[in-house]
Amino acid sequence: MKYEILDKNSVIDYLLEIKDVMNYFCDKELKAKEIGDGNLNFVFLVSSIKNPEKALIVKQAVPYLRCIGEDFPLDRKRMTFEIRALIEFSKLASSAIPKLHHTSEDMSVVVMQYLGEHQILRAGLLKQHKYLSFSEQISSYLANTLFYTSSLYLQSTQKRELIDQFNSNTELCKLTEDFVFTFAFMDNETNDNENVKDNKLAKKLFDDMQFKQRVLELKYKFMTQSDCLLHGDLHTGSIMLNDKETFVIDPEFSFVGPFGFDIGALLANLVNNYIHHIIVTENEEYQDWIIKNISDILCMFNHKFLKLWNKDESSALIVDGFINKDSLMKYKENFVKSILRDSVGFAGCKMARRVFGVAGVEDIRGIEDKGLRQKAESMAINIAKDFVLKYNSINEMEDIINIIKDNSAR
Amino acid sequence: MKYEILDKNSVIDYLLEIKDVMNYFCDKELKAKEIGDGNLNFVFLVSSIKNPEKALIVKQAVPYLRCIGEDFPLDRKRMTFEIRALIEFSKLASSAIPKLHHTSEDMSVVVMQYLGEHQILRAGLLKQHKYLSFSEQISSYLANTLFYTSSLYLQSTQKRELIDQFNSNTELCKLTEDFVFTFAFMDNETNDNENVKDNKLAKKLFDDMQFKQRVLELKYKFMTQSDCLLHGDLHTGSIMLNDKETFVIDPEFSFVGPFGFDIGALLANLVNNYIHHIIVTENEEYQDWIIKNISDILCMFNHKFLKLWNKDESSALIVDGFINKDSLMKYKENFVKSILRDSVGFAGCKMARRVFGVAGVEDIRGIEDKGLRQKAESMAINIAKDFVLKYNSINEMEDIINIIKDNSAR
Repeated sequence: MKYEILDKNSVIDYLLEIKDVMNYFCDKELKAKEIGDGNLNFVFLVSSIKNPEKALIVKQAVPYLRCIGEDFPLDRKRMTFEIRALIEFSKLASSAIPKLHHTSEDMSVVVMQYLGEHQILRAGLLKQHKYLSFSEQISSYLANTLFYTSSLYLQSTQKRELIDQFNSNTELCKLTEDFVFTFAFMDNETNDNENVKDNKLAKKLFDDMQFKQRVLELKYKFMTQSDCLLHGDLHTGSIMLNDKETFVIDPEFSFVGPFGFDIGALLANLVNNYIHHIIVTENEEYQDWIIKNISDILCMFNHKFLKLWNKDESSALIVDGFINKDSLMKYKENFVKSILRDSVGFAGCKMARRVFGVAGVEDIRGIEDKGLRQKAESMAINIAKDFVLKYNSINEMEDIINIIKDNSAR
Repeated sequence: MKYEILDKNSVIDYLLEIKDVMNYFCDKELKAKEIGDGNLNFVFLVSSIKNPEKALIVKQAVPYLRCIGEDFPLDRKRMTFEIRALIEFSKLASSAIPKLHHTSEDMSVVVMQYLGEHQILRAGLLKQHKYLSFSEQISSYLANTLFYTSSLYLQSTQKRELIDQFNSNTELCKLTEDFVFTFAFMDNETNDNENVKDNKLAKKLFDDMQFKQRVLELKYKFMTQSDCLLHGDLHTGSIMLNDKETFVIDPEFSFVGPFGFDIGALLANLVNNYIHHIIVTENEEYQDWIIKNISDILCMFNHKFLKLWNKDESSALIVDGFINKDSLMKYKENFVKSILRDSVGFAGCKMARRVFGVAGVEDIRGIEDKGLRQKAESMAINIAKDFVLKYNSINEMEDIINIIKDNSAR
């Protein structure tokens, strides 16, 4: 099908032709509303007029940045990678991906389950909601998607086919290279320069050459280490959930990269939220809940990843009979420890870039009182620096929690 | 053009149609001789009848293993990767690649310079020839091909395009995974089992779980680390040279992989030759010459690689103004040290696999006297083990030379 941009009328005509979608609605009378508030894409909520709880989301990428307009071109091929990732992750962690009813790379369209009873995790955390199943569910999602798309499970041909599918997601990977690993740590026009100007904390960060050597190390891993298929942008705005279900959305940054990157993104955003509650709400019980969640997610990931590996041992990497059980177990434990270490390093970059870089997070940049915001920024930078400088010597879960706590005592 | 298998008659008809080739010969009277002695491909020497010093090589891949026949199918697409690598490396190290007169992926054919006055390095080393320009030239080849195809030089889009070109060379990468990193260290039908049987050295190697954990580490790097475009099989049989010129041939195993792999292959094969001269010829002067060459190649590579990097600093990885000069230099020195370390690790795998694996080397397996051959094998395994167990703590060139010398004192 030839690409055309849908509006709230043509989106219905489009859906009427798709058998799988019509099987869901069981009715031809549909209404559509544009509900997208993101920067990139158009998002329609389409529902049955007679039976409004029957509703689906239609997401379409346009060949420009939606929030600015046609003057800011951005390849709509980003939706191709989002579609491919949604399909891939659906197979591996079906309960964590919205049900897909239709996808079209030609039309840059995905039609999927409407998450009407779920909130964005970042918003929920700011409201001090304790999600009961979150750590359990997100750790399963991480263990499954990372393990089953890696060379620890796949045969070499399958792994290379996976790389073929995602290798050309250059444009969005380049955004991460620039905005997560580079510009936010130096003078750059894209930064939040009103804040950077005459800011001692910014100057100290931009001048910290030990930190920058380590950032280069991590950036290089991001650029060259082809461990597994990643979401690529797993912050707390890419997760929708309630007490029963956790969904991961928007994997347009997906690519085959280093194991620790998604875990690191999540860790960074949870720590940013923890800082928010230290500085703003001062809710200690909730702070403890966040810390417990961080610890639980990392421990459960560790455990679940090893469990999957123990179940499916033979792969391109490990041929039956090559090594004895004890030594293999030692090898695996070291392997998972190095995933944890890299996660901490990536988390450090991700936290630090949110302070002065182009894209802040509500948890920190959204703090209205300037004095409090500066305290939060300083805390975030201190934790981030320790993460980046010490990631390679992390041995236990405690080492991570200690870095967070040592740098956040008021 | 539709693929067809050439013979010594049709190869001439084929060449008569190619303008670039006919421009070289300046004459239509040609003769062809099949001279291939390799396992995989057909190789023709085509020369002018009137002017026999005008000669070219025509190499064609057939869709089976040449040395066995049509019953052993092997995708002729391997020549596609050889052609792409020859073209890529020609741009970066033109004096080390035979001049290309014509290539065709459709026909799986490459027409190139005939190296009539050059010898295979392995053969020359066995004859104790001292090649005067070898270390200088091969270190330049390595520095240029590795640096200019890496993310230290390329922009992200270019790097991803390079990966696209080579990503599907699965079949030959899989051969390396199996035969370099796996089967040669365990009971396997492909091994040299006449030698393995009742052999204490083999049993000790196959039971060495420390060694195997490290081999898994290196195999994983081989499978997932996308540093730069590699030759992929740079043993001393892939180099043709004389005192003035050094050529690298047969890059059909080429792929985007870890920096240390080609250097490691070369190091392994030079050490195997060193062992040969300790055990067989006992020519101490020549042993010293080999050691000096190993040291020179590694030092010169180090120096040249850094020099290229200092000349072209800005890349996808390093953005102007990100880090100060001193810190960048420290980062670079650590980076190159880690290349050296990985090279030593890969060299260990490559040496060890030549002892009991399917493909031996003339330098060791070719030793006729059984007692002497066993001494050589034991020396090779000891050096290989130390390389694999200690690669991550190598700091100086001396550490490498010491491992070789400590394990080869008779």
